Amino acid sequence: MSTNKSSPIWLMKPIKALLLDITGVLYESGTNIAIDGSIDAIQKLRNAGVPFRLITNETQRTVAMLIQKLAGLGYDFIENEVITPAMICREFIRKNQLRPHFLIHPNLEPEFNEIIIRHNPNCVVIGDADDAFTYQAMNNCFKLLMSLKEQSTNENLDHLLIGLGRNKYYRENGQLKLDLGGYLAALEYSTDLRAKIIGKPSKGYFQNALDSFGGKFSKEDLVMIGDDITGDVKGAQDFGVRGVLVRTGKYTPSMEQHPSIKPDAIVDNLKEAIDLIVQKNP
Amino acid sequence: MSTNKSSPIWLMKPIKALLLDITGVLYESGTNIAIDGSIDAIQKLRNAGVPFRLITNETQRTVAMLIQKLAGLGYDFIENEVITPAMICREFIRKNQLRPHFLIHPNLEPEFNEIIIRHNPNCVVIGDADDAFTYQAMNNCFKLLMSLKEQSTNENLDHLLIGLGRNKYYRENGQLKLDLGGYLAALEYSTDLRAKIIGKPSKGYFQNALDSFGGKFSKEDLVMIGDDITGDVKGAQDFGVRGVLVRTGKYTPSMEQHPSIKPDAIVDNLKEAIDLIVQKNP
Repeated sequence: MSTNKSSPIWLMKPIKALLLDITGVLYESGTNIAIDGSIDAIQKLRNAGVPFRLITNETQRTVAMLIQKLAGLGYDFIENEVITPAMICREFIRKNQLRPHFLIHPNLEPEFNEIIIRHNPNCVVIGDADDAFTYQAMNNCFKLLMSLKEQSTNENLDHLLIGLGRNKYYRENGQLKLDLGGYLAALEYSTDLRAKIIGKPSKGYFQNALDSFGGKFSKEDLVMIGDDITGDVKGAQDFGVRGVLVRTGKYTPSMEQHPSIKPDAIVDNLKEAIDLIVQKNP
Repeated sequence: MSTNKSSPIWLMKPIKALLLDITGVLYESGTNIAIDGSIDAIQKLRNAGVPFRLITNETQRTVAMLIQKLAGLGYDFIENEVITPAMICREFIRKNQLRPHFLIHPNLEPEFNEIIIRHNPNCVVIGDADDAFTYQAMNNCFKLLMSLKEQSTNENLDHLLIGLGRNKYYRENGQLKLDLGGYLAALEYSTDLRAKIIGKPSKGYFQNALDSFGGKFSKEDLVMIGDDITGDVKGAQDFGVRGVLVRTGKYTPSMEQHPSIKPDAIVDNLKEAIDLIVQKNP
C-alpha cells in the first residue's frame, strides 16, 4: 500500500547497507510482540548479504539487555550490530578524559561501570532517567553545571552537559511518555549552556554508525529506516543518508504532511522497505 | 558608595510610586534577617507618603504566609501592598473560565482553594513546586498538554501552559536552587507549546502592579527596585518603568557589566535608593 511504488526514486541509487531504528520498527514500544513481518525481513536482509546496523536512542537498557529483549521476540542480533548512545558516550568520555556525573536510568548504569566516578566530576551526562528525574537529582546537576561553568574556559563549555539523545517523548503501552529532551532543555535554560547530544539526530552519531562498517561505505550508500520523522528521517537526511519513514511505531498520518521534512520514502512497515530494497539489489 | 550619586539621571523625573522586589531587597533568601536598613527605609517611605507595591515572583508561599514571614522580620505590610503571581493567576483563571491542573508547591495550594478542580482540566499551571517536580508529576502535565493541544484550536493554545514566573534559579542559604523556569522550558520543548507567563518579567504583570494603584499613576511615574537584573530591572524597563538594581540578594558584580541590560541606577541597597528618592521628592 505504499504510495511510492510507482516512483521509487530512493531505490534508483544502490543501497549497500542499512541503518534501522529498533523501537517502532522491530517491535512496538511497551509490548513483547515483534511487528508483523519484521523478523522475516531481517532474515531476508541477512540472506541477501546486506549489512545493517540497529541505531537506537534507547537509554533505559544496556546493549546486552536490548539484545536479550529482541531475542525474546524472535530476533538474533549480536552486539556489533547495535549502536546505542551509551556505547558512543563511553568512547567520548574516554577520549576526552571526562569524569561524568550521571543522571541516567538505573538499568543503564552497567554500561558505565568502569567510568562511574563518585568524586570531582567535570561534566553531566543525562539519559532517559524516568522516575530518577527527581527535583533533587535535577538540582544537583544544575548546581554542578553552574559551578563547572564558573571554572571553565569558553573552549570546554560544550563538554559540560551531554545528552544521550534529545527526544521529546515516546509511546509506551499506548500512552505518551516524557523523554529526556525536556530535561535537557530544563538544564540548558537554567544554566545557559548548550548540551552536546550523543544519539539521533546528531550528525556525529550517524557518522559513528557509518564508521562502524569499517570504512566500506559512504553516506550515499546507506538508507535509514525509522518511525521518528525527526530523529530518524531528518537526522539521516541532514547527515546525507536517505531517510525512510515506516507507518508503524509512533508514526502518525500527520507526519506525511510535515511542513518541512519530506522522507525519501514512506512505507507501511520494515517488511515492505526490505522487500523493495532486496528486490532492487539482488 | 553608589557610582550614581554624581549623575542621578533616574532621579530627575518625578518618582510618584515604587515597585519593590521582596527577596534579596527586604531580606536575604533562606534567612530570617532583614537586610540592613530596609525596615527603616520602608518606614521612611510611609512617612514620606510615597505609595509602593511589593511585586514578587514568590510561589512557595501564600500572600498571608509572606506577610507573616515579613512581620517576623520586623515589617508591617498589608495584603493590598503585595502582588504575587498566584493572586494575578487566580484573576486570570476566573476571567478566562479556566479549569487548571496545578503543579505547584503544596504551600501555595490555599491560594487556589476555590479553584482547584479535580476533573476535566483545560490548562496546566506551573509554580516553583520544588520536590513536587517528580517525573510522574511532570509526565502528567505533559500528557494533559498533549491531549489538550490535540483538542484545541490555534486561538486558545496560549492558555494551555501557564507559568507563575519563569525564573532560572534562586539562592537559598548560600546555595543556588533550580527554579520553575527550567521545568517550563521542559514542557515547552516536549509539547511545542509556549507558556504564558504570569510574574516578572512579563509586561502584563507590571501592568497589574500599575493598575493596583487605581489609575493614579502612569509608567513614567514609577521606579522598580530589585536584585534580579532580568526579572526586575529589564522587566521594568521593557514595560516602561525605571529599573534600579540593588547590590544585595542575588546581585553579583558581573551584573554591572551586563552586555545588554543597563539599570537606570545601581545602589548599595534599598536604604540608599529610598534615601535618594525621598530626598529628591520631599
